[in-house]
Amino acid sequence: MPAFEHHVFVCQNVRPEGAPRPSCTSDGKSELLAELQQRTKAAGLSGRVRINKSGCLDQCEHGPTVVVYPEAVWYGKVQAADAAEIVEEHLIGGRPVERLRIADGCLNTKSCPHRTQG
Amino acid sequence: MPAFEHHVFVCQNVRPEGAPRPSCTSDGKSELLAELQQRTKAAGLSGRVRINKSGCLDQCEHGPTVVVYPEAVWYGKVQAADAAEIVEEHLIGGRPVERLRIADGCLNTKSCPHRTQG
Repeated sequence: MPAFEHHVFVCQNVRPEGAPRPSCTSDGKSELLAELQQRTKAAGLSGRVRINKSGCLDQCEHGPTVVVYPEAVWYGKVQAADAAEIVEEHLIGGRPVERLRIADGCLNTKSCPHRTQG
Repeated sequence: MPAFEHHVFVCQNVRPEGAPRPSCTSDGKSELLAELQQRTKAAGLSGRVRINKSGCLDQCEHGPTVVVYPEAVWYGKVQAADAAEIVEEHLIGGRPVERLRIADGCLNTKSCPHRTQG
């Protein structure tokens, strides 16, 4: 298999207390990551789908943040309880979970209202 | 801008001494990452291209490993001295650096000869 069918990056960034932008995790570890990894493995997707730790994905005001490549689907405010739906709908079914997507007007945009209000 | 034109993940994984697979960094930090970040910024690509830390990308025998999405171009044995070529040729010019690409027969393949000989 030449490449991962889905390569999922889960932000594990933690900032110092009092930092101007929020953190995606409190301590650099997330139950979300573990839950995605466990469910992907249980679904027999190991080797085809990779769940990866990542550093800051720069969408901090929408965190916890996840991005799925190569399709470049960005999710925000993702909780461990959302892992099952991401795995079943998106990674197995090929249907991104629309309710979790970061809006185009927010993604990678310094003028995003969630960011400027922060 | 709705998504990064290029999203570059640079493995920063470090394993304990004596681990069966090699590490991409010795201490979780790499000059390669810093060099890519600095050159991307200097080229005025901030916001369009993101250089990201990542956890283990699972191509350890070919590390230090870098993957560029959404085009899913995988590089191996990448050194800090290669950063200029990656930025100029690939991230600006749109031409992947062929000499650094991980071969299809090695990528994400447990039977890769570099892995089985390890």
